[in-house]
Amino acid sequence: MATLKVPAQVPSPDQDSEQLRKAFQGWGTNEALIISILAHRNADQRKLIRGTYAATYGEDLLKDLQKELSSDFERAVLLWTLDPPERDAYLANEATKRLTSSNWVIMEIASTRSALELLKVKQAYQASFKKSLEEDVAYHTSGDFRKLLVPLVSTFRYEGDEVNMKLAKSEAKLLHGKIGEKAYNHEDLIRILTTRSKAQLSATLNHYNNEFGNAITKDLKADPGDEYLKLLRATIKCLTYPEKYFEKVLRLAINKTGTDEWALTRVVTTRAEVDLQRIAEEYQRRNTGPLDRAIAKDTSGDYKSFLLALAGNDD
Amino acid sequence: MATLKVPAQVPSPDQDSEQLRKAFQGWGTNEALIISILAHRNADQRKLIRGTYAATYGEDLLKDLQKELSSDFERAVLLWTLDPPERDAYLANEATKRLTSSNWVIMEIASTRSALELLKVKQAYQASFKKSLEEDVAYHTSGDFRKLLVPLVSTFRYEGDEVNMKLAKSEAKLLHGKIGEKAYNHEDLIRILTTRSKAQLSATLNHYNNEFGNAITKDLKADPGDEYLKLLRATIKCLTYPEKYFEKVLRLAINKTGTDEWALTRVVTTRAEVDLQRIAEEYQRRNTGPLDRAIAKDTSGDYKSFLLALAGNDD
Repeated sequence: MATLKVPAQVPSPDQDSEQLRKAFQGWGTNEALIISILAHRNADQRKLIRGTYAATYGEDLLKDLQKELSSDFERAVLLWTLDPPERDAYLANEATKRLTSSNWVIMEIASTRSALELLKVKQAYQASFKKSLEEDVAYHTSGDFRKLLVPLVSTFRYEGDEVNMKLAKSEAKLLHGKIGEKAYNHEDLIRILTTRSKAQLSATLNHYNNEFGNAITKDLKADPGDEYLKLLRATIKCLTYPEKYFEKVLRLAINKTGTDEWALTRVVTTRAEVDLQRIAEEYQRRNTGPLDRAIAKDTSGDYKSFLLALAGNDD
Repeated sequence: MATLKVPAQVPSPDQDSEQLRKAFQGWGTNEALIISILAHRNADQRKLIRGTYAATYGEDLLKDLQKELSSDFERAVLLWTLDPPERDAYLANEATKRLTSSNWVIMEIASTRSALELLKVKQAYQASFKKSLEEDVAYHTSGDFRKLLVPLVSTFRYEGDEVNMKLAKSEAKLLHGKIGEKAYNHEDLIRILTTRSKAQLSATLNHYNNEFGNAITKDLKADPGDEYLKLLRATIKCLTYPEKYFEKVLRLAINKTGTDEWALTRVVTTRAEVDLQRIAEEYQRRNTGPLDRAIAKDTSGDYKSFLLALAGNDD
């Protein structure tokens, strides 16, 4: 469930464009006005506003926002305003660049989006960067990370809910065997995680748990400091229980010395229209106090107001 | 260029359906009538005929064809009548089955279709078989074949014609190094072939040829009997010069003791609407005599008439 709140009566894209234009003009920027508009429009509405803004003023709304805003607030507003596939393409590209490289962001996008959403990310990626997401991920990763990430971003996963129980049992056994041998990068282990449908994978992992007495993620904790094993566990969580994965990303981003705004902004902007409500419920269950209170405590100014608005709480 | 000949005045789908229905009725089947219709309709027209036939007679045209026809002629008509993505999905699924398994067919479909065509094949595959093409290919292949085929069917390849020459040079060198070490299954060699755009790959392979004095396919002939190396060379041909690849498949299918009808039917039905004209030109250049004469010499009856009609020669 989304946390985004769209008013019952939405102004026309013309009116919204005009108000945004006003917010940019004069002495100083009217950040509150920008938040009151953009943080309360869904993806389709934001797209219409961008189109209308460009047609009316001959300027790109994103470029104007970039000029007017700064730092964490700027990044949050820009990411939010982008169309979801464009936004994911942008984040994925950033994740293949040296200074901002992140196996986690690549894994997260590949594992938590639907097959059709991921396809749209690939199309947006090609339109923006004139190359494929797959070639960039394959080129900029290496070793076990590459072995896992390339098929993860490449597969057009089946999304039906049919389950082959015989296969689930044989593959659970196969996984248990490989993990017993500490063959965490074995091609069959990677094949199962990266190509099976989420429904089939859940059946396999449930059988694993029932048959062998431990959740697979527990058995994958042999060496808690191993970065590849961490990513493998996170991948399994993303594929089977994404809210729990995102809850943990938020928890780690907030509850540390110095907030990780990069992660906080990414999760809030990419999930506000999808499942931030469910993530917040997980957060509440796992921590003392609600998510919005924790965000409010750790952030300030316009950035704080914007995130809280997306999280459904801007009283 | 296609060889398919569609008449200037195409009868309506209603008329075609009625004629096909007539061809099935009475004593014996009217094969000539079936050929005169189906072998002269393009994919869109055949789809309309199937729809109209089902709506009018409450039967599936494919099932009726299956009942009326037999052997090689039956297979050719059925494959041809299928919508191209459905047909490829059918062929690819067959290629993962034990008795009809074929790494070549998987490679051919993955390498010679456009990115969007391959995506449609994946969608048709999921609709028909309730699982993904990727998981079946990954599950039913092994060793070096799996290493090559899984990314080959998975990547949504970029199709723009931009070329990064610096990258082409560095990757040509990388390929040459790996081939020098006989590391034919090296992950970088496979990464380059399976993820780079066809334009980029051509630039890389041209540079390879210019810089190192041999075509890469020649350097990959170290062990002519090695099945993996054969598939690797064929993959490169499919990606850079598909007409040549298909010419060779036809040449080997025809010029042997006992025709390989399986391959002949596949190439003629999948390419008649695409590039069979170009393939026939390659054939003429590489062999003594034209392709249609060779097909006529090696086949007979309705099967022969049907293939020749698709090849643009049914006088």
